[in-house]
Amino acid sequence: MGTMSLLSLLEAEAGQYVSGEEISRKLNVSRTAIWKQVRKLESDGYKIDAVPRLGYRLTGKPSRLSLQELLPKLQTKRFGRQIKLLETVPSTQDELRKLAEEGAEEGTLVIAEQQTKGRGRMGRYWVSPAGKGVWMSLLLRPPVPLPLTPQLTLLAAVALSRAISRIVPLEIGIKWPNDLLVGGKKISGILLESAAEDERLRYVVVGMGISVNLDAEDYPEELLEKAVSLKMAAGAPVNRSELVASILVEFELLYDLFLEQGFAPIRTLWEAHSVTLGHLTTLFTPQEAIEGIPRGLDDMGGLKVEMADGSLRTVYSAEVGVRQE
Amino acid sequence: MGTMSLLSLLEAEAGQYVSGEEISRKLNVSRTAIWKQVRKLESDGYKIDAVPRLGYRLTGKPSRLSLQELLPKLQTKRFGRQIKLLETVPSTQDELRKLAEEGAEEGTLVIAEQQTKGRGRMGRYWVSPAGKGVWMSLLLRPPVPLPLTPQLTLLAAVALSRAISRIVPLEIGIKWPNDLLVGGKKISGILLESAAEDERLRYVVVGMGISVNLDAEDYPEELLEKAVSLKMAAGAPVNRSELVASILVEFELLYDLFLEQGFAPIRTLWEAHSVTLGHLTTLFTPQEAIEGIPRGLDDMGGLKVEMADGSLRTVYSAEVGVRQE
Repeated sequence: MGTMSLLSLLEAEAGQYVSGEEISRKLNVSRTAIWKQVRKLESDGYKIDAVPRLGYRLTGKPSRLSLQELLPKLQTKRFGRQIKLLETVPSTQDELRKLAEEGAEEGTLVIAEQQTKGRGRMGRYWVSPAGKGVWMSLLLRPPVPLPLTPQLTLLAAVALSRAISRIVPLEIGIKWPNDLLVGGKKISGILLESAAEDERLRYVVVGMGISVNLDAEDYPEELLEKAVSLKMAAGAPVNRSELVASILVEFELLYDLFLEQGFAPIRTLWEAHSVTLGHLTTLFTPQEAIEGIPRGLDDMGGLKVEMADGSLRTVYSAEVGVRQE
Repeated sequence: MGTMSLLSLLEAEAGQYVSGEEISRKLNVSRTAIWKQVRKLESDGYKIDAVPRLGYRLTGKPSRLSLQELLPKLQTKRFGRQIKLLETVPSTQDELRKLAEEGAEEGTLVIAEQQTKGRGRMGRYWVSPAGKGVWMSLLLRPPVPLPLTPQLTLLAAVALSRAISRIVPLEIGIKWPNDLLVGGKKISGILLESAAEDERLRYVVVGMGISVNLDAEDYPEELLEKAVSLKMAAGAPVNRSELVASILVEFELLYDLFLEQGFAPIRTLWEAHSVTLGHLTTLFTPQEAIEGIPRGLDDMGGLKVEMADGSLRTVYSAEVGVRQE
């Protein structure tokens, strides 16, 4: 029995009780199987009344992203003023990239309940099931030269971690450059895709994937050691519309600060949230593995790493492996 | 009378003489008009015998880009090993970008006899008439982080200026970052379009437009003060296949040097060819106009500018206006 068939049955009765016997007969399953599916639906955010003799009744559905709910919460000037909300999309990044090439304005947002080809860094697959996460892409057209793009990568991490902390009481650490961690496990992925003409940035598409209300069973088993959702970490589901609004507000605030005052305030915030600084780390660049202790960010946004001989090296692009000390 | 009609007539006779009288009658034009058109065709590279009483005979056509001619000259390992040669294309950049997204290999080249929507920096129109220039785009997949892209911009300028100098005896100066000048006039445009994922460059499409055999009448009048072709500057037409081969060889050589030894040797070469260093210059960034004397390049590829108060500023992206001193 799939959950959809039980769900359809309950939805068809529009809030009326359906007896276990009737369900059992119509779906040709045992009473125990029904009970399991009811628990699964509840964990997905459905509210179901179970009353002996009367049976089961659907009293609530999981919250969905809706512009009606989102827009009133949006205290922004530009970010999210143009929103494309999709049920399913292969990738919000590709969708927004198309809009960017067609001339979409800064702040344009593409958000989807579900991605079928969500991408993480290096083309890795990103788990993005329906209705449980925030999968979205935000368009920036920063008037800064290409070499400063790393600063935007770091800015995005600061904006997201602060926005999440406003909604969910969790301590969030930033692993260089922009992974957000709770208790050492990843709760979000950020991917900036840039298009430039010489040293002029044409646009940056900031992809954000946040595991909001995923349950353990939504993850492939091998990911459970490394990934966690906000719901799993905080013990309660999180309103996704509130979270999206919070991210857009915080992101716009920091972005405007960055355009006005440059990288210095962003650097300070990033360093304060970092879990990378001060720990012996191996950084895998395309050319080599660098081992040292990251000490801070430089003016451009590179990571200053103290090597064994005391010298400093600056790294702009690498995969991070944290060594046990 | 258009030149094409005279040309078709001569081509139809396949090397036989056509009398001036016959041409005059068939095209309904004066003998003087025929003579003018013959001179025009000759300046475009056609060879025409004119013999009193016999008339005109086509004995040679302008050189066309052909892979048969190009490939034997190509002493490269990767650059130009995949070539897409097109008669007409809106823009070689857009064409190669598509191939890049589909996974084309480093060194892939798109080259066209004519571009109908050739683009320069900032989306400016680029004059690229049929058969007279080298309009091409080269694909790089450099394993360097995004902030180092300015180094590639500078590398491209050095490669082109050296490659051209090997074929045409002209002194070529580089105006920061990558305009090539002869006698203060622009002979070529280079446009790097980069696509990046976080700090990882996915690819760089290097667009090169070189005004090879253009004549004064190919330019809009307002451009003649600022632009010149190799033919106009050197006084003789240039073999385009040789030029393309020379560019690919020189570019690969310098690119491999860069991957092996880093930016230092490229910087030295760029500084030696520069016409920007040492002259009072105004640099227009998106934010402001900076006036000072460019003194050299920094480690990242930025331009170090000495300000009036003696302080140094580094500029990564700007339009350059050179002031008269």
